[in-house]
Amino acid sequence: MARILITSGPTRQYLDPVRYITNASSGRMGACLVAAAIERGHDVVVVSGPVDVRYDTRATVHRVTTTDEMLSVVRRQFAECDGLVGVAAPCDYRPLRVEDHKIAKTGQPLVLHLVETPDIVATMGSEKGDRWVVGFALETEDHRFRAITKLQKKSCDLIVLNEPQAMDSATNQVEVLDGLGNVVLACSGSKEDVAARLFELFESRLIH
Amino acid sequence: MARILITSGPTRQYLDPVRYITNASSGRMGACLVAAAIERGHDVVVVSGPVDVRYDTRATVHRVTTTDEMLSVVRRQFAECDGLVGVAAPCDYRPLRVEDHKIAKTGQPLVLHLVETPDIVATMGSEKGDRWVVGFALETEDHRFRAITKLQKKSCDLIVLNEPQAMDSATNQVEVLDGLGNVVLACSGSKEDVAARLFELFESRLIH
Repeated sequence: MARILITSGPTRQYLDPVRYITNASSGRMGACLVAAAIERGHDVVVVSGPVDVRYDTRATVHRVTTTDEMLSVVRRQFAECDGLVGVAAPCDYRPLRVEDHKIAKTGQPLVLHLVETPDIVATMGSEKGDRWVVGFALETEDHRFRAITKLQKKSCDLIVLNEPQAMDSATNQVEVLDGLGNVVLACSGSKEDVAARLFELFESRLIH
Repeated sequence: MARILITSGPTRQYLDPVRYITNASSGRMGACLVAAAIERGHDVVVVSGPVDVRYDTRATVHRVTTTDEMLSVVRRQFAECDGLVGVAAPCDYRPLRVEDHKIAKTGQPLVLHLVETPDIVATMGSEKGDRWVVGFALETEDHRFRAITKLQKKSCDLIVLNEPQAMDSATNQVEVLDGLGNVVLACSGSKEDVAARLFELFESRLIH
Protein backbone atom coordinates (compact mmCIF):
# COMPACT_ATOMS: atom_id res chain seq x y z
CA MET A 1 0.00 0.00 0.00
CA ALA A 2 1.25 3.45 -0.88
CA ARG A 3 0.23 7.03 -0.20
CA ILE A 4 -0.30 8.58 -3.62
CA LEU A 5 -0.74 12.20 -4.66
CA ILE A 6 -2.85 12.72 -7.79
CA THR A 7 -3.19 16.12 -9.45
CA SER A 8 -6.27 16.52 -11.62
CA GLY A 9 -8.24 18.94 -13.75
CA PRO A 10 -7.23 22.23 -15.34
CA THR A 11 -6.10 25.41 -13.64
CA ARG A 12 -7.15 28.95 -14.55
CA GLN A 13 -5.02 32.02 -15.12
CA TYR A 14 -7.09 35.19 -14.94
CA LEU A 15 -6.54 38.25 -17.17
CA ASP A 16 -9.01 40.30 -15.12
CA PRO A 17 -11.79 39.45 -12.63
CA VAL A 18 -13.84 37.75 -15.37
CA ARG A 19 -11.69 36.33 -18.17
CA TYR A 20 -9.12 33.56 -17.90
CA ILE A 21 -7.00 31.14 -19.89
CA THR A 22 -7.64 27.45 -19.32
CA ASN A 23 -8.17 24.16 -21.17
CA ALA A 24 -10.93 21.57 -21.46
CA SER A 25 -9.58 19.10 -18.92
CA SER A 26 -12.64 17.73 -17.11
CA GLY A 27 -10.85 15.92 -14.26
CA ARG A 28 -12.52 12.69 -15.39
CA MET A 29 -9.26 10.78 -16.00
CA GLY A 30 -8.05 12.07 -12.63
CA ALA A 31 -11.23 10.87 -10.92
CA CYS A 32 -10.85 7.43 -12.54
CA LEU A 33 -7.22 7.20 -11.38
CA VAL A 34 -8.28 8.20 -7.86
CA ALA A 35 -10.95 5.48 -7.85
CA ALA A 36 -8.53 2.87 -9.27
CA ALA A 37 -5.88 3.66 -6.64
CA ILE A 38 -8.39 3.48 -3.79
CA GLU A 39 -9.84 0.20 -5.14
CA ARG A 40 -6.34 -1.25 -4.98
CA GLY A 41 -5.98 -0.23 -1.33
CA HIS A 42 -3.88 2.92 -1.61
CA ASP A 43 -4.28 6.17 0.33
CA VAL A 44 -5.02 8.99 -2.08
CA VAL A 45 -4.57 12.75 -1.82
CA VAL A 46 -6.01 14.81 -4.70
CA VAL A 47 -5.08 18.35 -5.69
CA SER A 48 -7.67 19.46 -8.20
CA GLY A 49 -8.40 22.53 -10.28
CA PRO A 50 -12.01 23.72 -10.80
CA VAL A 51 -14.01 20.77 -12.18
CA ASP A 52 -17.54 19.41 -11.83
CA VAL A 53 -16.42 15.79 -11.60
CA ARG A 54 -16.80 14.05 -8.23
CA TYR A 55 -13.84 12.34 -6.60
CA ASP A 56 -14.17 9.16 -4.53
CA THR A 57 -15.17 10.35 -1.06
CA ARG A 58 -12.41 8.23 0.47
CA ALA A 59 -9.78 10.52 -1.07
CA THR A 60 -8.63 13.74 0.59
CA VAL A 61 -9.32 16.50 -1.92
CA HIS A 62 -7.67 19.94 -2.03
CA ARG A 63 -9.20 22.49 -4.43
CA VAL A 64 -7.11 25.14 -6.18
CA THR A 65 -7.60 27.65 -9.00
CA THR A 66 -4.23 28.73 -10.40
CA THR A 67 -1.06 26.83 -11.28
CA ASP A 68 0.93 28.56 -8.54
CA GLU A 69 -1.68 27.51 -5.99
CA MET A 70 -1.57 23.95 -7.31
CA LEU A 71 2.23 23.86 -7.02
CA SER A 72 2.15 25.19 -3.50
CA VAL A 73 -0.42 22.61 -2.29
CA VAL A 74 1.27 19.78 -4.23
CA ARG A 75 4.65 20.55 -2.72
CA ARG A 76 3.20 20.51 0.79
CA GLN A 77 1.27 17.27 0.22
CA PHE A 78 4.01 15.45 -1.68
CA ALA A 79 6.19 15.66 1.43
CA GLU A 80 3.99 12.93 2.95
CA CYS A 81 3.47 10.78 -0.15
CA ASP A 82 5.31 7.92 -1.84
CA GLY A 83 4.54 8.91 -5.38
CA LEU A 84 2.87 11.48 -7.63
CA VAL A 85 0.60 10.96 -10.63
CA GLY A 86 0.42 14.29 -12.43
CA VAL A 87 -2.65 13.97 -14.63
CA ALA A 88 -3.75 17.60 -14.11
CA ALA A 89 -3.51 19.96 -17.08
CA PRO A 90 -2.24 23.09 -15.34
CA CYS A 91 -2.47 26.23 -17.44
CA ASP A 92 1.15 26.81 -18.39
CA TYR A 93 0.96 30.49 -19.30
CA ARG A 94 -0.28 33.36 -17.18
CA PRO A 95 -0.78 37.04 -18.04
CA LEU A 96 2.20 39.06 -16.84
CA ARG A 97 -0.28 41.62 -15.51
CA VAL A 98 -3.71 40.85 -14.05
CA GLU A 99 -6.15 43.77 -14.25
CA ASP A 100 -8.11 44.69 -11.10
CA HIS A 101 -11.17 45.59 -13.13
CA LYS A 102 -12.80 43.95 -16.13
CA ILE A 103 -10.97 45.08 -19.26
CA ALA A 104 -13.43 47.29 -21.17
CA LYS A 105 -13.78 46.81 -24.91
CA THR A 106 -12.47 49.73 -26.92
CA GLY A 107 -12.73 48.39 -30.47
CA GLN A 108 -8.93 48.11 -30.52
CA PRO A 109 -6.78 44.95 -30.49
CA LEU A 110 -5.41 43.91 -27.12
CA VAL A 111 -1.82 42.75 -26.68
CA LEU A 112 -1.45 40.23 -23.90
CA HIS A 113 1.97 39.43 -22.48
CA LEU A 114 2.08 35.89 -21.14
CA VAL A 115 4.79 34.22 -19.10
CA GLU A 116 5.19 30.53 -18.29
CA THR A 117 3.85 29.24 -15.00
CA PRO A 118 6.01 26.86 -12.94
CA ASP A 119 6.00 23.25 -14.17
CA ILE A 120 4.52 21.25 -11.29
CA VAL A 121 5.63 17.78 -12.38
CA ALA A 122 9.15 19.00 -13.25
CA THR A 123 9.46 20.76 -9.90
CA MET A 124 8.34 17.67 -7.99
CA GLY A 125 10.54 15.48 -10.22
CA SER A 126 13.59 17.52 -9.29
CA GLU A 127 12.73 17.22 -5.58
CA LYS A 128 11.51 13.62 -5.56
CA GLY A 129 14.48 11.81 -3.91
CA ASP A 130 13.47 8.15 -3.66
CA ARG A 131 9.82 8.80 -4.47
CA TRP A 132 8.37 8.14 -7.92
CA VAL A 133 6.70 10.54 -10.36
CA VAL A 134 4.41 9.74 -13.29
CA GLY A 135 3.77 12.54 -15.76
CA PHE A 136 1.21 12.93 -18.53
CA ALA A 137 1.92 14.42 -21.94
CA LEU A 138 -0.77 15.74 -24.22
CA GLU A 139 0.73 16.17 -27.67
CA THR A 140 -0.59 17.15 -31.08
CA GLU A 141 2.57 16.29 -33.09
CA ASP A 142 5.85 14.32 -32.74
CA HIS A 143 4.05 12.50 -29.96
CA ARG A 144 6.56 9.96 -28.66
CA PHE A 145 9.55 12.21 -29.16
CA ARG A 146 7.96 15.05 -27.19
CA ALA A 147 6.74 12.68 -24.49
CA ILE A 148 10.16 11.12 -23.90
CA THR A 149 11.77 14.56 -23.88
CA LYS A 150 9.28 15.64 -21.22
CA LEU A 151 9.93 12.48 -19.18
CA GLN A 152 13.63 13.33 -19.12
CA LYS A 153 13.25 17.06 -18.47
CA LYS A 154 10.76 16.44 -15.68
CA SER A 155 12.62 13.53 -14.06
CA CYS A 156 9.61 11.25 -14.40
CA ASP A 157 9.79 7.48 -13.90
CA LEU A 158 7.05 6.93 -16.48
CA ILE A 159 5.15 9.21 -18.79
CA VAL A 160 1.65 8.62 -20.12
CA LEU A 161 1.05 9.94 -23.62
CA ASN A 162 -2.41 10.93 -24.78
CA GLU A 163 -4.07 13.28 -27.24
CA PRO A 164 -6.42 16.27 -26.97
CA GLN A 165 -9.37 14.06 -27.97
CA ALA A 166 -9.08 12.59 -24.45
CA MET A 167 -10.07 15.92 -22.90
CA ASP A 168 -13.60 15.99 -21.58
CA SER A 169 -14.21 12.57 -23.17
CA ALA A 170 -15.40 9.32 -21.56
CA THR A 171 -12.66 7.32 -23.31
CA ASN A 172 -8.92 7.55 -23.62
CA GLN A 173 -6.11 6.01 -25.65
CA VAL A 174 -2.69 6.01 -24.04
CA GLU A 175 0.85 4.81 -24.38
CA VAL A 176 3.19 4.67 -21.42
CA LEU A 177 6.89 5.24 -21.99
CA ASP A 178 9.72 4.47 -19.59
CA GLY A 179 13.05 6.27 -19.22
CA LEU A 180 14.60 4.23 -22.02
CA GLY A 181 11.90 5.21 -24.47
CA ASN A 182 10.23 1.79 -24.38
CA VAL A 183 6.47 1.67 -24.78
CA VAL A 184 5.68 -0.37 -21.67
CA LEU A 185 1.88 -0.21 -22.06
CA ALA A 186 -0.50 0.76 -24.83
CA CYS A 187 -4.22 0.61 -24.18
CA SER A 188 -7.52 2.27 -24.94
CA GLY A 189 -11.07 2.11 -23.66
CA SER A 190 -13.19 3.79 -21.03
CA LYS A 191 -11.25 6.02 -18.68
CA GLU A 192 -12.18 3.61 -15.85
CA ASP A 193 -10.55 0.68 -17.70
CA VAL A 194 -7.51 2.68 -18.74
CA ALA A 195 -7.05 3.91 -15.15
CA ALA A 196 -7.15 0.32 -13.84
CA ARG A 197 -4.54 -0.81 -16.42
CA LEU A 198 -2.32 2.16 -15.55
CA PHE A 199 -2.45 1.40 -11.83
CA GLU A 200 -1.56 -2.26 -12.45
CA LEU A 201 1.50 -1.00 -14.31
CA PHE A 202 2.42 1.57 -11.63
CA GLU A 203 2.20 -1.16 -8.98
CA SER A 204 4.37 -3.57 -10.90
CA ARG A 205 7.05 -1.00 -11.69
CA LEU A 206 6.96 1.69 -9.03
CA ILE A 207 5.18 0.67 -5.84
CA HIS A 208 7.04 -1.64 -3.49
CA MET B 1 -47.31 33.52 -25.36
CA ALA B 2 -44.08 34.41 -27.11
CA ARG B 3 -41.26 32.57 -28.82
CA ILE B 4 -38.13 33.57 -26.92
CA LEU B 5 -34.46 33.08 -27.73
CA ILE B 6 -32.17 32.77 -24.73
CA THR B 7 -28.38 32.70 -25.05
CA SER B 8 -26.56 31.09 -22.14
CA GLY B 9 -23.16 30.05 -20.85
CA PRO B 10 -19.67 31.14 -21.86
CA THR B 11 -17.97 30.72 -25.21
CA ARG B 12 -14.37 29.65 -25.78
CA GLN B 13 -11.73 31.21 -28.00
CA TYR B 14 -8.88 28.81 -28.63
CA LEU B 15 -5.19 29.85 -28.87
CA ASP B 16 -4.19 26.38 -30.05
CA PRO B 17 -5.87 22.92 -29.97
CA VAL B 18 -5.65 22.82 -26.17
CA ARG B 19 -5.69 26.29 -24.59
CA TYR B 20 -8.49 28.84 -24.71
CA ILE B 21 -9.80 32.04 -23.20
CA THR B 22 -13.14 31.85 -21.43
CA ASN B 23 -14.95 32.90 -18.23
CA ALA B 24 -16.65 31.13 -15.34
CA SER B 25 -20.23 31.48 -16.60
CA SER B 26 -21.93 28.21 -15.63
CA GLY B 27 -25.13 28.61 -17.65
CA ARG B 28 -27.12 28.37 -14.40
CA MET B 29 -28.83 31.77 -14.71
CA GLY B 30 -29.59 30.86 -18.34
CA ALA B 31 -31.11 27.53 -17.30
CA CYS B 32 -33.26 29.27 -14.66
CA LEU B 33 -34.50 31.81 -17.22
CA VAL B 34 -35.31 28.98 -19.64
CA ALA B 35 -37.30 27.19 -16.94
CA ALA B 36 -39.11 30.40 -15.90
CA ALA B 37 -40.08 31.20 -19.49
CA ILE B 38 -41.39 27.68 -20.10
CA GLU B 39 -43.32 27.70 -16.81
CA ARG B 40 -45.05 30.85 -18.02
CA GLY B 41 -46.09 29.15 -21.24
CA HIS B 42 -43.54 30.52 -23.70
CA ASP B 43 -41.71 28.64 -26.45
CA VAL B 44 -37.98 28.72 -25.77
CA VAL B 45 -34.97 28.30 -28.04
CA VAL B 46 -31.58 28.18 -26.29
CA VAL B 47 -28.17 28.83 -27.82
CA SER B 48 -25.61 27.69 -25.27
CA GLY B 49 -21.84 27.57 -24.96
CA PRO B 50 -20.13 24.56 -23.31
CA VAL B 51 -21.69 24.06 -19.87
CA ASP B 52 -22.59 21.14 -17.62
CA VAL B 53 -25.93 22.61 -16.59
CA ARG B 54 -29.09 20.90 -17.90
CA TYR B 55 -31.74 22.91 -19.70
CA ASP B 56 -35.45 22.15 -19.43
CA THR B 57 -36.09 19.36 -21.93
CA ARG B 58 -39.03 21.30 -23.39
CA ALA B 59 -36.60 23.91 -24.78
CA THR B 60 -34.85 23.47 -28.13
CA VAL B 61 -31.13 23.69 -27.37
CA HIS B 62 -28.36 24.52 -29.85
CA ARG B 63 -24.77 23.99 -28.64
CA VAL B 64 -21.88 26.15 -29.79
CA THR B 65 -18.25 26.71 -28.80
CA THR B 66 -17.04 30.10 -30.08
CA THR B 67 -18.60 33.55 -30.15
CA ASP B 68 -18.77 33.57 -33.95
CA GLU B 69 -20.63 30.26 -33.88
CA MET B 70 -22.99 31.64 -31.25
CA LEU B 71 -23.69 34.73 -33.36
CA SER B 72 -24.35 32.68 -36.44
CA VAL B 73 -26.84 30.34 -34.72
CA VAL B 74 -28.47 33.24 -32.81
CA ARG B 75 -29.00 35.23 -35.99
CA ARG B 76 -30.65 32.24 -37.68
CA GLN B 77 -32.88 31.46 -34.70
CA PHE B 78 -33.80 35.06 -33.88
CA ALA B 79 -35.48 35.31 -37.30
CA GLU B 80 -38.28 33.16 -35.87
CA CYS B 81 -38.48 34.63 -32.37
CA ASP B 82 -40.29 37.55 -30.73
CA GLY B 83 -37.53 38.49 -28.34
CA LEU B 84 -34.00 37.75 -27.17
CA VAL B 85 -32.63 37.41 -23.63
CA GLY B 86 -28.86 37.56 -23.93
CA VAL B 87 -27.64 36.13 -20.65
CA ALA B 88 -24.67 34.28 -22.22
CA ALA B 89 -21.19 35.56 -21.43
CA PRO B 90 -19.56 35.23 -24.86
CA CYS B 91 -15.79 35.52 -24.81
CA ASP B 92 -15.26 38.98 -26.29
CA TYR B 93 -11.65 38.64 -27.37
CA ARG B 94 -10.13 36.01 -29.65
CA PRO B 95 -6.50 35.40 -30.60
CA LEU B 96 -5.75 36.97 -33.97
CA ARG B 97 -3.96 33.77 -34.91
CA VAL B 98 -4.94 30.25 -33.80
CA GLU B 99 -2.04 27.78 -33.86
CA ASP B 100 -2.63 24.39 -35.54
CA HIS B 101 -0.46 22.61 -33.00
CA LYS B 102 -0.12 23.00 -29.26
CA ILE B 103 2.21 25.92 -28.53
CA ALA B 104 5.36 24.37 -27.04
CA LYS B 105 6.91 26.00 -24.01
CA THR B 106 10.27 27.61 -24.71
CA GLY B 107 10.97 29.37 -21.41
CA GLN B 108 10.27 32.69 -23.17
CA PRO B 109 7.31 35.05 -22.74
CA LEU B 110 4.55 34.74 -25.28
CA VAL B 111 2.89 37.77 -26.85
CA LEU B 112 -0.72 37.16 -27.74
CA HIS B 113 -2.55 39.51 -30.08
CA LEU B 114 -6.25 39.56 -29.33
CA VAL B 115 -9.05 41.13 -31.32
CA GLU B 116 -12.64 41.72 -30.27
CA THR B 117 -15.26 39.17 -31.26
CA PRO B 118 -18.59 40.38 -32.63
CA ASP B 119 -21.04 41.61 -29.99
CA ILE B 120 -24.02 39.27 -30.26
CA VAL B 121 -26.57 41.37 -28.36
CA ALA B 122 -25.51 44.57 -30.16
CA THR B 123 -25.76 42.86 -33.53
CA MET B 124 -29.22 41.50 -32.79
CA GLY B 125 -30.22 44.85 -31.27
CA SER B 126 -29.34 46.62 -34.51
CA GLU B 127 -31.38 44.09 -36.51
CA LYS B 128 -34.30 43.68 -34.12
CA GLY B 129 -37.02 45.66 -35.93
CA ASP B 130 -40.17 45.31 -33.79
CA ARG B 131 -38.75 42.53 -31.65
CA TRP B 132 -37.37 43.15 -28.16
CA VAL B 133 -33.89 42.52 -26.77
CA VAL B 134 -32.78 42.19 -23.14
CA GLY B 135 -29.05 42.38 -22.45
CA PHE B 136 -27.02 41.53 -19.38
CA ALA B 137 -24.07 43.56 -18.10
CA LEU B 138 -21.46 42.17 -15.76
CA GLU B 139 -19.53 45.08 -14.33
CA THR B 140 -16.79 45.51 -11.74
CA GLU B 141 -16.90 49.33 -11.53
CA ASP B 142 -19.15 52.29 -12.50
CA HIS B 143 -21.91 49.69 -12.60
CA ARG B 144 -25.04 51.63 -13.58
CA PHE B 145 -23.23 54.02 -15.87
CA ARG B 146 -21.63 51.19 -17.82
CA ALA B 147 -24.87 49.24 -17.92
CA ILE B 148 -26.92 52.11 -19.32
CA THR B 149 -24.18 52.86 -21.86
CA LYS B 150 -24.34 49.23 -22.97
CA LEU B 151 -28.13 49.33 -23.19
CA GLN B 152 -27.90 52.29 -25.55
CA LYS B 153 -24.99 50.99 -27.65
CA LYS B 154 -26.64 47.58 -28.01
CA SER B 155 -30.18 48.90 -28.68
CA CYS B 156 -31.59 46.90 -25.77
CA ASP B 157 -35.06 47.45 -24.37
CA LEU B 158 -33.89 46.52 -20.87
CA ILE B 159 -30.53 45.65 -19.39
CA VAL B 160 -29.92 43.43 -16.37
CA LEU B 161 -26.94 44.44 -14.27
CA ASN B 162 -25.10 41.91 -12.17
CA GLU B 163 -21.62 41.32 -10.74
CA PRO B 164 -18.93 38.66 -11.22
CA GLN B 165 -19.93 37.05 -7.90
CA ALA B 166 -23.00 35.78 -9.78
CA MET B 167 -20.84 33.59 -12.01
CA ASP B 168 -21.03 29.91 -11.14
CA SER B 169 -23.05 30.80 -8.04
CA ALA B 170 -26.49 29.57 -6.94
CA THR B 171 -27.64 33.11 -6.14
CA ASN B 172 -27.76 36.40 -7.95
CA GLN B 173 -28.38 40.08 -7.22
CA VAL B 174 -29.63 42.17 -10.10
CA GLU B 175 -30.89 45.57 -11.10
CA VAL B 176 -32.82 46.08 -14.30
CA LEU B 177 -32.51 49.41 -16.10
CA ASP B 178 -34.71 50.75 -18.85
CA GLY B 179 -33.78 53.08 -21.71
CA LEU B 180 -34.31 56.17 -19.54
CA GLY B 181 -31.88 54.91 -16.91
CA ASN B 182 -34.64 54.05 -14.43
CA VAL B 183 -34.07 51.08 -12.16
CA VAL B 184 -37.30 49.20 -12.92
CA LEU B 185 -36.48 46.15 -10.78
CA ALA B 186 -33.95 45.34 -8.08
CA CYS B 187 -33.96 41.90 -6.56
CA SER B 188 -31.74 39.19 -5.13
CA GLY B 189 -32.10 35.56 -4.14
CA SER B 190 -31.76 32.14 -5.70
CA LYS B 191 -31.29 32.23 -9.46
CA GLU B 192 -34.67 30.47 -9.76
CA ASP B 193 -36.41 33.28 -7.87
CA VAL B 194 -34.56 36.03 -9.70
CA ALA B 195 -35.40 34.41 -13.05
CA ALA B 196 -39.11 34.31 -12.15
CA ARG B 197 -39.07 37.99 -11.14
CA LEU B 198 -37.27 38.92 -14.35
CA PHE B 199 -39.80 37.11 -16.51
CA GLU B 200 -42.70 38.81 -14.73
CA LEU B 201 -41.07 42.11 -15.64
CA PHE B 202 -40.36 41.09 -19.25
CA GLU B 203 -44.01 40.09 -19.64
CA SER B 204 -45.34 43.30 -18.22
CA ARG B 205 -43.08 45.52 -20.31
CA LEU B 206 -42.15 43.63 -23.46
CA ILE B 207 -44.42 40.72 -24.28
CA HIS B 208 -47.81 41.56 -25.76
